[in-house]
Amino acid sequence: MSRYLDNCSTSFPKPPCVAEALYEYMTEVGSNVGRGRYQDAYSVEEKVMRCRERFADLFGAPDASGVAFTKNVTEALNVLLKGYLRPGDHVIVSSMEHNAVMRPLVQLEERGVTFTRARCTDEGDLVLESLEDCLRPSTRAVVMTHASNVCGTVLPIREVGAFCRAHGLPLFLDSAQSAGVLPIDMARDNVAAVCFTGHKGLMGPQGTGGLVTDPELARSLEPLVAGGTGSRSDSEQMPDFLPDHLEAGTLNLPGIVGLESALAWIDEVGVDAIHARESALTASLLDGLSELEAVGVLRVVGHRGTEGRLSAVSVQTPGRDEAEVADGLSREYGIMTRVGLHCAPSAHKTLGTFPEGTIRLSLGYFNTANDVDAAVTALEELLD
Amino acid sequence: MSRYLDNCSTSFPKPPCVAEALYEYMTEVGSNVGRGRYQDAYSVEEKVMRCRERFADLFGAPDASGVAFTKNVTEALNVLLKGYLRPGDHVIVSSMEHNAVMRPLVQLEERGVTFTRARCTDEGDLVLESLEDCLRPSTRAVVMTHASNVCGTVLPIREVGAFCRAHGLPLFLDSAQSAGVLPIDMARDNVAAVCFTGHKGLMGPQGTGGLVTDPELARSLEPLVAGGTGSRSDSEQMPDFLPDHLEAGTLNLPGIVGLESALAWIDEVGVDAIHARESALTASLLDGLSELEAVGVLRVVGHRGTEGRLSAVSVQTPGRDEAEVADGLSREYGIMTRVGLHCAPSAHKTLGTFPEGTIRLSLGYFNTANDVDAAVTALEELLD
Repeated sequence: MSRYLDNCSTSFPKPPCVAEALYEYMTEVGSNVGRGRYQDAYSVEEKVMRCRERFADLFGAPDASGVAFTKNVTEALNVLLKGYLRPGDHVIVSSMEHNAVMRPLVQLEERGVTFTRARCTDEGDLVLESLEDCLRPSTRAVVMTHASNVCGTVLPIREVGAFCRAHGLPLFLDSAQSAGVLPIDMARDNVAAVCFTGHKGLMGPQGTGGLVTDPELARSLEPLVAGGTGSRSDSEQMPDFLPDHLEAGTLNLPGIVGLESALAWIDEVGVDAIHARESALTASLLDGLSELEAVGVLRVVGHRGTEGRLSAVSVQTPGRDEAEVADGLSREYGIMTRVGLHCAPSAHKTLGTFPEGTIRLSLGYFNTANDVDAAVTALEELLD
Repeated sequence: MSRYLDNCSTSFPKPPCVAEALYEYMTEVGSNVGRGRYQDAYSVEEKVMRCRERFADLFGAPDASGVAFTKNVTEALNVLLKGYLRPGDHVIVSSMEHNAVMRPLVQLEERGVTFTRARCTDEGDLVLESLEDCLRPSTRAVVMTHASNVCGTVLPIREVGAFCRAHGLPLFLDSAQSAGVLPIDMARDNVAAVCFTGHKGLMGPQGTGGLVTDPELARSLEPLVAGGTGSRSDSEQMPDFLPDHLEAGTLNLPGIVGLESALAWIDEVGVDAIHARESALTASLLDGLSELEAVGVLRVVGHRGTEGRLSAVSVQTPGRDEAEVADGLSREYGIMTRVGLHCAPSAHKTLGTFPEGTIRLSLGYFNTANDVDAAVTALEELLD
């Protein structure tokens, strides 16, 4: 028997409707949106439009036309950062960012873009006052993760949104770990763009993601990928209307159809109920780990309680190689976790866990109390 | 009953194994390649590696490490063109290119890249001698479609490859319409990079595509999308090894697993057998259309025979609006085609069908002689 505790890499299992929607699309529909003049094409088009509307609803976005699909959140962040930033521009990030934010920014340094990391504590909490110190005359945006993929710490987006409003800056949110689990309200929190992945908290298939933006911002972006859009086919320039401006080439239609079905499932269950369930499981895991921490064989990284955090729980095993312990969890107990730096060196430096990294146990909606007990018992035995 | 004659947009139906592979992945596997240290992750990794190897085999590539996945061929062409070309560089294209080639090049003009279109005839054939006239001291590559998505005309890749060899230029091939239907041999034909889409002749799901390149070329490309790769997680720069250098973020794993299964199917049936079957159907369609052409109600664009062409058949209906006729085919006869400029204005200008466009009927492996007869009869009745 295997137990899956790696839901922050990708949620698994998915609600059954997701695979069914994909299968039905692949076997019964199969046509290209906007590229055929026949009935089947129209119904897929409706499905894709409904998916856009669900995103606008879920994130409190002004307009479904500001929803553009990409293959993953990484591409979405590249579309946003490379489409928006110009030589000489400066951005503020937190020191807890994933490489999906940091690697494009480091790449953009070659083109004269600069950035400053706002300070976070060794539990991953943003030191709000440090934002002010990061400001420069050339600052053009704040880019921030909503919740750490390493230790689950939630960043205070509403306060950061208020800071951005006060300084006339757009706030770009990396919702990779939070979408579907934490409420996001772009209008209320002054978020100009949300980049999302479809296959984590949103319960959809890998290969889906995108960005939800203010339409005016979206139109102003220089498209990262240019090509056929099935529109303005007389022109060799990208159309300036949405979503075509940001969506060249054939979309991942089976993926989007699956994602739409996942969003319907989330809508039915409710983001708050999902969060509550994951939070209860996480509380129980943290409880169990605190006993191991008390005897010194393990150290929990980040918040010890569920306040201000999501379900990613990172631990270190002083005196024991983390990779070996994770291997033991997998081989001897069938418990699937993830070990290492989780593509977030800046976060690990902030948390004091660089370069050795952590074992991350991440619970999802479909985990059970038994999974938690099994993981704690396994760690107890392995670290004995 | 509906008949699908839009296989150049996306092939449909797919071999049944494709949807089954996706479904199995979604319900039973579901883990991220290279991101977990557990058994399931390893088996997906094997599947993805087998898919890379199949591409290297299919295209006669030097090395499976030069296979990088993208969401579609458009992204692959952007990865290649934007990663390779620098300000001051010049490239040669044919005048038959799709906007997946032209739109990124027009965008790159802003960065000081220039291009020249090699001349093609009004049947879409490349005038080989015109390549020489396009050469400049700053020419750094030839970028060319293997077969026209408008009228199916096949471009003489082997001869273009020889031209490139003689002038020390890499040849970049857009195989959107040819992969899986025409043999491609990178080594023999001196092709430096093949950009492919997974969901047309390769019979896989939408949301898949990629590029197959010489590894040295691949490593030299500036990554279009940067982010987490599950490797070198201590660094905020993209790794320089393959395929990670060109693959940031989570891959479309269900799509790739489906595509792998489609490639296995193609391997079993054989590219030559697929081509022969599609060619026989196309011959029969062209025969039927020639009778309508003889009475002047319809004009076939491009080659009248199957020599030097694939299954995309474009027609114009002089005196009758093409969109209306295509609508009639769909509504009255359930025949699904595509009408317009097919994202290829340059090709239509070459063929003399700009700006009105064409009705494109495109046959696939799973079409039948009945489909062809029904289409010809429907056109006969509609154009009477």
